[in-house]
Amino acid sequence: MASQSIAHLFRLDREAKTSLQAQLRTRIVETIDSGVLPPGLKLPSSRKLGAQLGVARNTVSLAYQELIASGHLASRERSGVYVAERRRLSPATAVAGTRPREESSAVMRRAPQRVIPSGRLRYPPDWRRFPFPFIEGLYDRTLFPIAEWREASRMALAVKEVESWSTDTGEADDELLVDQLRQKILTRRGIAASADEILVTVGEQQALHLAFELLCETGSTVGLEDPGEPDVRALAHKRHADVRFFPVGDAGVEFEDGLEGVDLFYVSPSRQRPTGVTMPQAMRETLLAQAREADTLIIEDDFECELSFLADAPPALKSADGDGRVVYVASLSKVLSPGLRLGFLVGPADFIRAARRLRDLTTRKPSPITQRTAGIFLSLGHYDSMLRRLFDIYERRLIALRDALNHYRPLSIAIPPVTGGTSYWVRGPAELDADALRSAVQNAGVLIEPATPFFAEAQGHSNMFRLGVTSLDEAHIRPGIEALSREMRKLADRKDGNAFDPAGDDAEAKLLSEQDLRRHLTGARLDYQTVYGEPCTIELCEDGRMTGRAGYAQEDRDEGRWWIEGDHWCRRWTAWAYGETGRYRVEKEGSQIFWLDPDGRRIDRASIAPTANTETELAP
Amino acid sequence: MASQSIAHLFRLDREAKTSLQAQLRTRIVETIDSGVLPPGLKLPSSRKLGAQLGVARNTVSLAYQELIASGHLASRERSGVYVAERRRLSPATAVAGTRPREESSAVMRRAPQRVIPSGRLRYPPDWRRFPFPFIEGLYDRTLFPIAEWREASRMALAVKEVESWSTDTGEADDELLVDQLRQKILTRRGIAASADEILVTVGEQQALHLAFELLCETGSTVGLEDPGEPDVRALAHKRHADVRFFPVGDAGVEFEDGLEGVDLFYVSPSRQRPTGVTMPQAMRETLLAQAREADTLIIEDDFECELSFLADAPPALKSADGDGRVVYVASLSKVLSPGLRLGFLVGPADFIRAARRLRDLTTRKPSPITQRTAGIFLSLGHYDSMLRRLFDIYERRLIALRDALNHYRPLSIAIPPVTGGTSYWVRGPAELDADALRSAVQNAGVLIEPATPFFAEAQGHSNMFRLGVTSLDEAHIRPGIEALSREMRKLADRKDGNAFDPAGDDAEAKLLSEQDLRRHLTGARLDYQTVYGEPCTIELCEDGRMTGRAGYAQEDRDEGRWWIEGDHWCRRWTAWAYGETGRYRVEKEGSQIFWLDPDGRRIDRASIAPTANTETELAP
Repeated sequence: MASQSIAHLFRLDREAKTSLQAQLRTRIVETIDSGVLPPGLKLPSSRKLGAQLGVARNTVSLAYQELIASGHLASRERSGVYVAERRRLSPATAVAGTRPREESSAVMRRAPQRVIPSGRLRYPPDWRRFPFPFIEGLYDRTLFPIAEWREASRMALAVKEVESWSTDTGEADDELLVDQLRQKILTRRGIAASADEILVTVGEQQALHLAFELLCETGSTVGLEDPGEPDVRALAHKRHADVRFFPVGDAGVEFEDGLEGVDLFYVSPSRQRPTGVTMPQAMRETLLAQAREADTLIIEDDFECELSFLADAPPALKSADGDGRVVYVASLSKVLSPGLRLGFLVGPADFIRAARRLRDLTTRKPSPITQRTAGIFLSLGHYDSMLRRLFDIYERRLIALRDALNHYRPLSIAIPPVTGGTSYWVRGPAELDADALRSAVQNAGVLIEPATPFFAEAQGHSNMFRLGVTSLDEAHIRPGIEALSREMRKLADRKDGNAFDPAGDDAEAKLLSEQDLRRHLTGARLDYQTVYGEPCTIELCEDGRMTGRAGYAQEDRDEGRWWIEGDHWCRRWTAWAYGETGRYRVEKEGSQIFWLDPDGRRIDRASIAPTANTETELAP
Repeated sequence: MASQSIAHLFRLDREAKTSLQAQLRTRIVETIDSGVLPPGLKLPSSRKLGAQLGVARNTVSLAYQELIASGHLASRERSGVYVAERRRLSPATAVAGTRPREESSAVMRRAPQRVIPSGRLRYPPDWRRFPFPFIEGLYDRTLFPIAEWREASRMALAVKEVESWSTDTGEADDELLVDQLRQKILTRRGIAASADEILVTVGEQQALHLAFELLCETGSTVGLEDPGEPDVRALAHKRHADVRFFPVGDAGVEFEDGLEGVDLFYVSPSRQRPTGVTMPQAMRETLLAQAREADTLIIEDDFECELSFLADAPPALKSADGDGRVVYVASLSKVLSPGLRLGFLVGPADFIRAARRLRDLTTRKPSPITQRTAGIFLSLGHYDSMLRRLFDIYERRLIALRDALNHYRPLSIAIPPVTGGTSYWVRGPAELDADALRSAVQNAGVLIEPATPFFAEAQGHSNMFRLGVTSLDEAHIRPGIEALSREMRKLADRKDGNAFDPAGDDAEAKLLSEQDLRRHLTGARLDYQTVYGEPCTIELCEDGRMTGRAGYAQEDRDEGRWWIEGDHWCRRWTAWAYGETGRYRVEKEGSQIFWLDPDGRRIDRASIAPTANTETELAP
């Protein structure tokens, strides 16, 4: 091969993130490894190759030097640079294996244990291309604390640190990380744990896996939340446990009939997975009392423990665990990045000993480098800063989602109350088919998660879905929900259905004329509910002003103006509904009134409260 | 608190590896977190604190700036720096939990699955304090490629790279890493695998765990090597499999009676764990044929695949796997560092799909950051350089160990042949108790691993142990073995035994006088065996020269001189036995002669070959 032609092998990408020198080294190593450049081949001089590639001579020269140092190239005095003779690393023994590509390999034909059905929800792998990926948990790369992590990473690779984490201490975790978890994370959850009560895991999933492996077996009765994470169900099934499902309400999992006969109870009280609701303190105390009564063990999943911005989070169940029956699992991924895969398990010391041995057998300990890097990251205060930053960002996003849902009201939906987190659980009208909706909205660039896979029984939940904002910029949330509403209405039309059933008594619906509007709405008080279930009252004054009060304590207020244009009722709030003007036709049916969109579809309703004012009634 | 006194809280360690600035930040954050510095407290000026701490004003100033940016501190214009009011991160909810410290927690009292007995071998956690830790697999921190790993790490944290690895693509592994494994590692083992036939795992242990979980179950018959890794046995037991043991000889595991009835066969052909022997190519072909015949699946453990320096390694079994019945597991840790915890699994695509799903359920995928960093490290050619470096280092260490064993001959020992790796498996005289030896030598700074835990049945193997050199510098090996021999002889003395049984015929032993020595040894040829079982011949010429030839092809030769001093026979080789002078009394018993140490103990033997020369015979 004439050295003239070699340059063509090293195509460099000037747009790439890696330096030209690093690219060149990679290309040279590749061509040597693949046998394209044989041992003994003379390479062009750095000046010549530099000219051919259009890069500085020095770039080539440095690449050569590195590769001579690494043994890929060799230099002969006054003669030049050659591909090294590779005495040791034999040029790939002739590749011998024939690979069976048929449908089923001998391994899988004989394998007694078949494929576990996939329990994780699906979304397109190229989800980043979609403008509105409302999929909970997807990672927003812009939130990764690059500079801070780099600093911690650099420090973890200092010579002295390497000496420390590379000492094989068996299954002991990184002392610094364990200490930081205790001080910075667990104390905030009200948990005082000593080092021997903590185990670092490969993400939260391993913590759950170890807990299920150790705490249940064939014939154990395991109580699970319904809806819940499919992979939590899969872990119980993997242990051949008998599963008993407990329904989830607005205050978390419900256990009115007690826990008698339940050996192990899985609960996510801080923010229920997947609905996001929070279990109140009183209910937690009842749960612990009942667990003691029935001698039930508890796995407490506190995966989003750090993200309660809408209300104070009660301390973890584990904090009031008097007799060591609660095993606590959580993760650093929600704040730090799923790129790290670090979680942890907190339990009584004897349990942690057993879990450590099982971790040893199944994976050994999580990467000591990563543990040390995370420990340093926490010790420098970066975790707290990151958390504060996420608090602000996620809070804004979640409120943006709530506002958009409340404004666009895609059909008749309801969302349970949450105290934080990054998602809303949406219940649509009974006839909604969330799977059909998912397909329909995907074409409009919107990704949603139908709820069915979260339920033990698929039937009866096809009208629910989840909307998450972890990967959506605040600015994308409103247009995303607007697109979602539009698609939902189209879907409802295609079904020839109407979102709202005829309401209440058999009274006939009447489309209001200009005069009707004036008669029914002037001076009226309208009672309705926000999309997240809070009461809202709107008073329409005769002078055209209006006052809105929302929330149980009427803590959320706004002022605005209303008026009538022909047969349309119009309004504009100062802040609510983005301060935009709304213009609607209105129908009345008994004491209910309905707002219609331009196509005549009912998009919202309210009831007209009996007031001092004769028979007035009214709108949003 | 007067700001005067604050400096005392920030004790900085000038000897520490972390910078003073980073230390100061950590200390400030700690004191804020712990509540020692309350919100609103004014901190001393950077000039003042710098003076109090004896550090540059700039160090303090930079630390303050960082902490203001992270929200721990706040600055008020023209007033100074204060501990920030921490609106969001509530100052640790009063720690509520009471921790049960009694012997057994409720969790463990109720937990159906008990602690799995520890299968890993034990050594003192402070093994670094011992000058001679002959424990296989302990990591030599000086071998971690710090600069190269830092480079890869820095590149993996470039903004564009973060975008790439942080995209949640479910359970897909890092493309770059998978590609590099295929090109750089698998082709060298003769394996052509496509990306969907490879799964990255949390170290090799997870690869083994996934394979055992998927390929055997209650009632399966699993064939294991004996001796073998205790944790491989534990994985089979965890699956409630019926285990059948196959003995290991000098050519690897023996299966003369075939594999009939064996569902799954675990084998480590490249370098048997723990003996280190290599299965020859012909035997591998027989094994595959028998597996096909009996429809047995195979797990091939190739953990040290890259370290065959004493002879060419045959390609992996997997390379000749015609019908997809071999699942291959290996690790990057032996070359890169156990700090990373990366291994991989190669198998038919349908099996890898199932394994990926099981990995998903039990841990999710290994850290995407670490995967990308390792991929970059490989693509830059650093892995190959590292491997070449380890080749040289480990080869020198292993040869140093062999030479030392051959020279000091601690009692009568034998070691099976190995083609590389980092350990020797030592078989001592039948009466040796390796457990007692371990305790005895530990006081002399030597750590060894008795063989018993590697065997299915404890009995009958107490005379074996393993010596590894992964964590011993070459220079420490000889003195380590010298110390070991000394302790072994002491132990034998205490037992009042003698290492060598009276040899052969009933002839009586006779201590040779100066005249006897001259008569029996002048012109004699001595035949004996090196400690690793190779034949060795020494010719003692009349003119005082001597010639040694060792190895099956007599490939190892040396020259030296011998002479007689009073009743002692003396010798000195040019290179063998470190080129040192040896001085021994000699006993003769029939055709055998024995060398004695100063205390009169027999330390080696040879037989005098019949030569043209009358009845001459002779020594090392």
